[in-house]
Amino acid sequence: MNYFKKRTAIYPGTFDPITNGHLDIVIRAACLFDDIIVAVSDNLRKQPLFTLQERKEMAENAVQKIKQVEVMTFEGLLVTFARKMKASAVIRGIRAVSDFEYEFQMALMNRKLNPKLETVYLMPSEEYTYLNSTLVKEIARLGGKLDCFLPPMVVQKLSEKFAEQPG
Amino acid sequence: MNYFKKRTAIYPGTFDPITNGHLDIVIRAACLFDDIIVAVSDNLRKQPLFTLQERKEMAENAVQKIKQVEVMTFEGLLVTFARKMKASAVIRGIRAVSDFEYEFQMALMNRKLNPKLETVYLMPSEEYTYLNSTLVKEIARLGGKLDCFLPPMVVQKLSEKFAEQPG
Amino acid sequence: MNYFKKRTAIYPGTFDPITNGHLDIVIRAACLFDDIIVAVSDNLRKQPLFTLQERKEMAENAVQKIKQVEVMTFEGLLVTFARKMKASAVIRGIRAVSDFEYEFQMALMNRKLNPKLETVYLMPSEEYTYLNSTLVKEIARLGGKLDCFLPPMVVQKLSEKFAEQPG
Amino acid sequence: MNYFKKRTAIYPGTFDPITNGHLDIVIRAACLFDDIIVAVSDNLRKQPLFTLQERKEMAENAVQKIKQVEVMTFEGLLVTFARKMKASAVIRGIRAVSDFEYEFQMALMNRKLNPKLETVYLMPSEEYTYLNSTLVKEIARLGGKLDCFLPPMVVQKLSEKFAEQPG
Amino acid sequence: MNYFKKRTAIYPGTFDPITNGHLDIVIRAACLFDDIIVAVSDNLRKQPLFTLQERKEMAENAVQKIKQVEVMTFEGLLVTFARKMKASAVIRGIRAVSDFEYEFQMALMNRKLNPKLETVYLMPSEEYTYLNSTLVKEIARLGGKLDCFLPPMVVQKLSEKFAEQPG
Amino acid sequence: MNYFKKRTAIYPGTFDPITNGHLDIVIRAACLFDDIIVAVSDNLRKQPLFTLQERKEMAENAVQKIKQVEVMTFEGLLVTFARKMKASAVIRGIRAVSDFEYEFQMALMNRKLNPKLETVYLMPSEEYTYLNSTLVKEIARLGGKLDCFLPPMVVQKLSEKFAEQPG
Repeated sequence: MNYFKKRTAIYPGTFDPITNGHLDIVIRAACLFDDIIVAVSDNLRKQPLFTLQERKEMAENAVQKIKQVEVMTFEGLLVTFARKMKASAVIRGIRAVSDFEYEFQMALMNRKLNPKLETVYLMPSEEYTYLNSTLVKEIARLGGKLDCFLPPMVVQKLSEKFAEQPG
Repeated sequence: MNYFKKRTAIYPGTFDPITNGHLDIVIRAACLFDDIIVAVSDNLRKQPLFTLQERKEMAENAVQKIKQVEVMTFEGLLVTFARKMKASAVIRGIRAVSDFEYEFQMALMNRKLNPKLETVYLMPSEEYTYLNSTLVKEIARLGGKLDCFLPPMVVQKLSEKFAEQPG
Repeated sequence: MNYFKKRTAIYPGTFDPITNGHLDIVIRAACLFDDIIVAVSDNLRKQPLFTLQERKEMAENAVQKIKQVEVMTFEGLLVTFARKMKASAVIRGIRAVSDFEYEFQMALMNRKLNPKLETVYLMPSEEYTYLNSTLVKEIARLGGKLDCFLPPMVVQKLSEKFAEQPG
Repeated sequence: MNYFKKRTAIYPGTFDPITNGHLDIVIRAACLFDDIIVAVSDNLRKQPLFTLQERKEMAENAVQKIKQVEVMTFEGLLVTFARKMKASAVIRGIRAVSDFEYEFQMALMNRKLNPKLETVYLMPSEEYTYLNSTLVKEIARLGGKLDCFLPPMVVQKLSEKFAEQPG
Repeated sequence: MNYFKKRTAIYPGTFDPITNGHLDIVIRAACLFDDIIVAVSDNLRKQPLFTLQERKEMAENAVQKIKQVEVMTFEGLLVTFARKMKASAVIRGIRAVSDFEYEFQMALMNRKLNPKLETVYLMPSEEYTYLNSTLVKEIARLGGKLDCFLPPMVVQKLSEKFAEQPG
Repeated sequence: MNYFKKRTAIYPGTFDPITNGHLDIVIRAACLFDDIIVAVSDNLRKQPLFTLQERKEMAENAVQKIKQVEVMTFEGLLVTFARKMKASAVIRGIRAVSDFEYEFQMALMNRKLNPKLETVYLMPSEEYTYLNSTLVKEIARLGGKLDCFLPPMVVQKLSEKFAEQPG
């Protein structure tokens, strides 16, 4: 009889907020690994629109029907968090050439800090090429409709957020 | 007790010839999947320097000490071969922006032909950024030394090949 | 009363064969210009799979329902053909960074040869990002199904062509 | 007798300030469309150096001799403004690979929000490859001479602005 | 007897802080030119972590054993500083496609402002591809170890800086 | 009294044929180094239009008025030739992102084969961005006028060549 090794992968990000493009990657990763941890980074330097707790809640709500996916928050170095979680891989979605170079610098640096942690790139569905959290927030701020790009709870939270913050 | 799904990944290419950069990817992939099939494509349009049989032998020789790695040859569509092998992923090494776009076109097309087959990109060690089979053949043809870039059997076969083919 | 200037645009290419991605661009261009000339280049250096006449026929068949679109063949410099046709613009689809640089070199050279002829880039629907004539021919040669990427007449002609040419 | 459809194109931007590179694009666009609207975005997030009113005035001064060009300001989504203006196209200048990807994300998103609005890319003269508003402001701040890159009124306004704002 | 012209090159940057990647470029440049000036820019807009004086000291400490290299600070336009120093070249390290475009805009603009000053690009060792000052500061802030990427004095200063600034 | 080291740089290429863009780089390099060797590679794999001897003659004719520039031909590895010539640098013109990656692979490989030989990238004048030997031959073949892109002897030789070779 054969036992196969259990493999955990981490999908890190700011998720400010989580989009259907992120979900597409989570679903693809869940076919390749036994456990996926969606790891919401505090990332205070980026001055997120949503608090860490709000970002975690929206992510949890969005992934609730995908088996073997858990949402966690983390502070500090990704490689430290990955070691604690016994993860064998970091998942990254890659869509564009400009993503690519930034991603490679991060991955090479992480490899120096922890050579055992592999970074794995997945390609989202081509319909999400144009989708990123910054654009989504900008369009929401200007009153555009985003229902088909975002999980329902995120649509709701964005409209509440921009009702609070005029302009 | 938990059973984890066995996962097979295919690493396809022309491998004309296999380099230390390819081996670096095989070793990384072998940490993420239970079985790796190095799949040597016949690819007659590219007019390979080595025959399919020679390319397979060099690859087998190079991977012989890596567990759970098998070398096979294939003709026809990669997605058809992957389905027959019950593979859940295709592995590709990605080093440069120009790789990236070609790889994406291939992966999107393969996804259309078989939506269940995921393409997974791994990044080789930065010391292999400059290494590709075309450059290696060119340098061998001009008499340059390549011992630290290639498996020993490939060094041997290349020198035999260019002794046969003057110029 | 106002008269607006009639504007003709040329959409040049090898069209070996025309794909649904090319058609997507023709349709977009037809909303912006009064007349579109699909200009099939002989391009003997590229050793096309289909003859100039076959490529023209497939293009004609594909565009027959789009108003104000005509298919022509041309030899020699594009700028000379454009001048003869009194075209004010050349249309090019652009999908990827690698397209972009080649396109720019061509456009700048054409501008030197004829400063009055503007090159206009349109973006195809994102579902055609992965689609190019080379990939289509390769998949057809290997027996893959392409019905949803190609006009019906092209699917037919490709299967005839690869029945003739085994391998 | 033939009537041709009147076509309006919008050239949106922050224009902080307008440069000779922007003017080059306006002139090219004016050969392809019947009416051009230079649409100055308020874009408060980018913290422009000049007020919306100043940016509009400099643009108006710069385009005053180009027929069928009008300068307007807009707030909110570009697609909403374009619909109100009955525009059939958005004009964008494209110079570099990094422009390209950002532009594509914007254009694909705008296409989702309004499928009837086409984005059209034009290439500025190669002498403006190096010219962007950020670089221009930086050089002005450091006291460099910019007379050949900018409309005269912009040169004047920049020198006034940096006389006010030491450092 | 032959006298060869003495040539001075400037290596400008923010150096916030200097890394082993910068040093790699200084050493390469010192084989090609007779004098190298490491020119630390005040660059207040970038809100550096270290003061101009601190950045200069760390650079001086790092280059002290490389002959014919001097560290200076400068304000204002690089071309003005280069003229004062009688430099014939500006040295820039280039690692990635995204560097490339920004570098080209800068170099073309500098060439307009001073046609006699040539910009020369050198490629750092591939082990420094992933290394940039921003990433280094981020990892230091999160408590990662950086001893093999940075000169000893910089490691020391970074740990002092982040002891002062919690978070 | 000071003696400065004499420095020789090699500018290698196929030069099939030499263009004004190549000359622009030679002139820039001649300001930075004491001797420039324009090194014409035989490069039989590329199936050049002109013979090695013709390419050398056209290059010699074009550079005859630039002091300290010599034209030579070479076979085999560039690093071997550079060592024989006691060159300290290889000069390459770089214009586009696609150049960039190929150039980096070559330079990193050459550095492995000879760590003492530095590759130095220069940027041609922006008016030569669109100019490459392949495009020039294509336009010449189709009868386009190229007088302002090419040295006079090359214009002459190209028109002779295409008079011989119809089509």
